[in-house]
Amino acid sequence: MEHASPTAAVLIIGDEILSGRTADTNLNTIARFLGALGIDLMEARTVGDRPEQIVAALNALRAGHDYVFTTGGIGPTHDDITADCVAEAFGVPIGERADALAILQRRYSPDDLNAARRRMARIPDGGVLIANPVTDAPGFQIGNVFVMAGVPRIMTAMLEDVAPRLRTGAVVHARTLRVTGVGEGAIAAPLAEAARTSRDLSFGSYPFGAGSDGEVGTNLVVRGRDAALVDAAIDALASRLAQDGILTVKIAT
Amino acid sequence: MEHASPTAAVLIIGDEILSGRTADTNLNTIARFLGALGIDLMEARTVGDRPEQIVAALNALRAGHDYVFTTGGIGPTHDDITADCVAEAFGVPIGERADALAILQRRYSPDDLNAARRRMARIPDGGVLIANPVTDAPGFQIGNVFVMAGVPRIMTAMLEDVAPRLRTGAVVHARTLRVTGVGEGAIAAPLAEAARTSRDLSFGSYPFGAGSDGEVGTNLVVRGRDAALVDAAIDALASRLAQDGILTVKIAT
Repeated sequence: MEHASPTAAVLIIGDEILSGRTADTNLNTIARFLGALGIDLMEARTVGDRPEQIVAALNALRAGHDYVFTTGGIGPTHDDITADCVAEAFGVPIGERADALAILQRRYSPDDLNAARRRMARIPDGGVLIANPVTDAPGFQIGNVFVMAGVPRIMTAMLEDVAPRLRTGAVVHARTLRVTGVGEGAIAAPLAEAARTSRDLSFGSYPFGAGSDGEVGTNLVVRGRDAALVDAAIDALASRLAQDGILTVKIAT
Repeated sequence: MEHASPTAAVLIIGDEILSGRTADTNLNTIARFLGALGIDLMEARTVGDRPEQIVAALNALRAGHDYVFTTGGIGPTHDDITADCVAEAFGVPIGERADALAILQRRYSPDDLNAARRRMARIPDGGVLIANPVTDAPGFQIGNVFVMAGVPRIMTAMLEDVAPRLRTGAVVHARTLRVTGVGEGAIAAPLAEAARTSRDLSFGSYPFGAGSDGEVGTNLVVRGRDAALVDAAIDALASRLAQDGILTVKIAT
């Protein structure tokens, strides 16, 4: 598929992901969010709480894609260094911002708004706030980079404020043909033939149940920006497999 | 923490992760596997089924870390291009290997061992097979790169054959102090102070329940290679928070 559509990358920030303490779920949430907007997610990186690593990854990704989405490291504790790293990557100053501070002042009493919590009002110069309807402390956008929280519930909520700022593309339609009782090897040749003859579509094969006692088979997924082409391709593939005596079922996902 | 211990990176390969169709779980499995061996996972990347992207990412990661673990793209279908990309990255030929073919011949009847399935016997020159006790088709190691399946059950099983090949390090011990009823902002200052005074340890704060109707609080995690130091630090942190009237509980994870 060609890339007239916007492209994007994700940067997951946090030692807890790399130590295995936390299993990231934000990448999948963002991937599905972007898919619905017709934006092509091209790559993702996960880095630890190390400034040089965050800055290098961010600069590589923002140079290569229309949009970059980061998660993690914008809370009040000493290991929350994302905002400073983003400022460094962009080469701009960072300081306490009146609009961000006003949000925190509405949430916290003067006693509770301690120095640590005030750190969450520090925004790189030129940043535009991203609303956080869950715990108020905002994320921010600077240039083509959207800086969001790591807590999945907050990150997901922030996407609502991000969506209207994005240029969208033609949505990629996906149809799935479920093949049961045979493995990938039995359908590989007809699938490759279909992929060769339909260059505007992508064809994937995702096995399930490998080696388990239950059902074994694979999901054949056809993806493309022209829904009619995708539908025709999935029907043609089903017919072709039927010639080999392989039964398929169209499923929803 | 210093890095006398081996370092590692993970490369997740597959359009299905970036499209959001599949939520990756292999990164977390590998992260916990490496943690138990005292190997520091430093970064992870996720790329699509595009040769130039796979080759570039693999070459960047294998130059920067002691070990690289890849998942995905070693099955029999046309979109399984990882082995060819690894050969290209290393600048070595790739061809059908007798030991890998013998494994497939034991699993499949001559009729079932079609051209697509035989592709799974193609191994870059110099590669050493990784056993697959689930579906037999092997992964392989070449240099410091371990090439594994994407299906989580198979990938996990392959790690058993990988483990004995790895140089291990001192295991990082982690202890967790659970703080309930207050947010991160209330504990940020004592936590930062502890981090400043114990440079050989790392201190993390991972909030939970943000904005939900249930319990709200944060898990404070102290990590380090000296278990006695970690234990002492977690006790000192608990005592320090008690001075502020903040109750904590040591929890298992």
